[in-house]
Amino acid sequence: MAISGPESVAGSSRIPVTQLTRFVEQMFQAAGLSNDHARTATSVLLNADIRGVWSHGVIRLPMYIQRLQKGVAKAQPNIQIQSVAHSALQVDGDHGLGLVVAPAAMAAAVELAQKTGIAIAGVKNSGHFGAGAHYLQQAVGADCMGMVFTNASKALPPWGAMAPFFGTSPFGFSAPTHPGEVFMVDMAMSRIARGKLKFAAQRGEQVPLGYALDAQGKPTTDGAAAFEGIMLPFGEHKGAAMSWMMDVLGGVFTGAFFGGDVANPFKRFDVVQGAGHTFVAIRADLFQPLQVFKDRMSELLKRVKHLPRAHGFEEILSPGEPELRIAKTNHDQGVPLTPDVLESLRESAQGLGVTAPF
Amino acid sequence: MAISGPESVAGSSRIPVTQLTRFVEQMFQAAGLSNDHARTATSVLLNADIRGVWSHGVIRLPMYIQRLQKGVAKAQPNIQIQSVAHSALQVDGDHGLGLVVAPAAMAAAVELAQKTGIAIAGVKNSGHFGAGAHYLQQAVGADCMGMVFTNASKALPPWGAMAPFFGTSPFGFSAPTHPGEVFMVDMAMSRIARGKLKFAAQRGEQVPLGYALDAQGKPTTDGAAAFEGIMLPFGEHKGAAMSWMMDVLGGVFTGAFFGGDVANPFKRFDVVQGAGHTFVAIRADLFQPLQVFKDRMSELLKRVKHLPRAHGFEEILSPGEPELRIAKTNHDQGVPLTPDVLESLRESAQGLGVTAPF
Repeated sequence: MAISGPESVAGSSRIPVTQLTRFVEQMFQAAGLSNDHARTATSVLLNADIRGVWSHGVIRLPMYIQRLQKGVAKAQPNIQIQSVAHSALQVDGDHGLGLVVAPAAMAAAVELAQKTGIAIAGVKNSGHFGAGAHYLQQAVGADCMGMVFTNASKALPPWGAMAPFFGTSPFGFSAPTHPGEVFMVDMAMSRIARGKLKFAAQRGEQVPLGYALDAQGKPTTDGAAAFEGIMLPFGEHKGAAMSWMMDVLGGVFTGAFFGGDVANPFKRFDVVQGAGHTFVAIRADLFQPLQVFKDRMSELLKRVKHLPRAHGFEEILSPGEPELRIAKTNHDQGVPLTPDVLESLRESAQGLGVTAPF
Repeated sequence: MAISGPESVAGSSRIPVTQLTRFVEQMFQAAGLSNDHARTATSVLLNADIRGVWSHGVIRLPMYIQRLQKGVAKAQPNIQIQSVAHSALQVDGDHGLGLVVAPAAMAAAVELAQKTGIAIAGVKNSGHFGAGAHYLQQAVGADCMGMVFTNASKALPPWGAMAPFFGTSPFGFSAPTHPGEVFMVDMAMSRIARGKLKFAAQRGEQVPLGYALDAQGKPTTDGAAAFEGIMLPFGEHKGAAMSWMMDVLGGVFTGAFFGGDVANPFKRFDVVQGAGHTFVAIRADLFQPLQVFKDRMSELLKRVKHLPRAHGFEEILSPGEPELRIAKTNHDQGVPLTPDVLESLRESAQGLGVTAPF
């Protein structure tokens, strides 16, 4: 991964977690969210920053705030959760922030799964929900496995096409583990997260060849050209097929916008996004006691870690383990933010009459 | 894809579908399966051959027969399906062929999903189940979306490791469509299907660089060295994470063997395989009428097909569409089989006292 993170940028500061949390909560409150929703949305963003997924953290706060100010994301959505079958819930997000709609949907799915074994929540009229990890953690926090599907604005070409059409749409899967262990797959359908391209674009950095085409469909290593151009899917035709599946599960199935109609949250401040998600929660103890499930997860992890290592690898990590380690550092030392992100947060705060503590 | 298929091999014959079906059924019956199970297992294999997924078709019949003859796959398994929660079923395959255990499990999941909206079946004590497509078709045949997860014998290294550990384990997803359309993702976690490597190995063919390492961990283009060596996952660390997820959902969760313990069906004729699968069925009409769901699938397909095409592509196909086209040809003209596959079928038939019609 050739793209640098905020901690390596000159002039970056580490902002203490409690200070940053209070600030982001105040921002959401000032933009009209209820205290409860402000707390939830803040928790989703901070969770990303703390885990080192800076591309999905407070770097995006000004975008969310602007959407709220323009009214294309409702500050006080009337989120409706309706039972449509024994184990299925339909969630209408009423065009609230994905950051408050998605947590409500996964919470409801997890609660229902406790009774029925597995439950599904289909969400429409939502928006960009940040990093999938938050929802995956909701599931494992209740000793469930979690699955996350979403659609998103146009970024990736279908296999054989030359125009952005599907979203980078993360797929997520998590399973409960013993403390100190983690199993959390949270991956964009692109070879690189869109937020990281944006970061490279902002700093005039290069990206590796094969990650994106420019707007004319030619391979590029220029971060800005890549961000304005066409991202490429991971895993060739297989990743492309999965990105199509994301629009089926996130869009077609739920009743949300689909087929390229979900609006780009960074560019279209005149329309709602209309994104959709599907969340699945599955009790991990369906076929054996929970402790046995977790013991088996541990055994699997142990066996993998003892395999001979490939050249250049000091150890083998489970999906989510690198982020778990970063989280410890960032919790203790604060979240690293670059000068331009801090400046954009200050500007956004000024517009809301909030005083930034940095 | 640089590896040739059977229709391009000199001396291949096309065997009529009805003739091949009758033959394979007789073989399974002669090996001790009930008429019902013989019909089901045959249908799974023929389905693969007809769709052009020859790596998972009758080419493997001698292996299944040998496992039945050695008793490491039970010809008359006592398959038990037990409700463990409102929407969850536990399936004990009693070490029958995956070809009969898996169809029973998906059928039960689909039936339950009709009542509850979504249902899950966790399967243990099973074996290699052939191509995932059959189970995905069971779901769409009942107007459900289907998901297929399985584990398998050691083939792929975890990311950062140098030894085969996870299975090539296909992930599958399907959604109902209007007639003539299809949406079926059925993909191995490897860059190439293991059966295709075996085919290349048998013919002394080359495989592209980056598909596999030899047994010493060095990159190879030799088909035989690749088949005996270490396959590589699709999509770098993302495909590797998904292959780990397959062992969580197929093995850890279901109570099946896991962590490298599932036996290689081609090599170990002295032990049961112990593979596990998880099947999920989801009613496609949970959030809108079925016709609307299918109309939206059509609209999505239409929009994709009208996108500007990348260099070298004459048209854009949905996942499963190439196989749908091949199926029409093979239905009409018969299934192409190479001389060595025909010979191995004749040999296997002789051992069972069955007369091969080719």
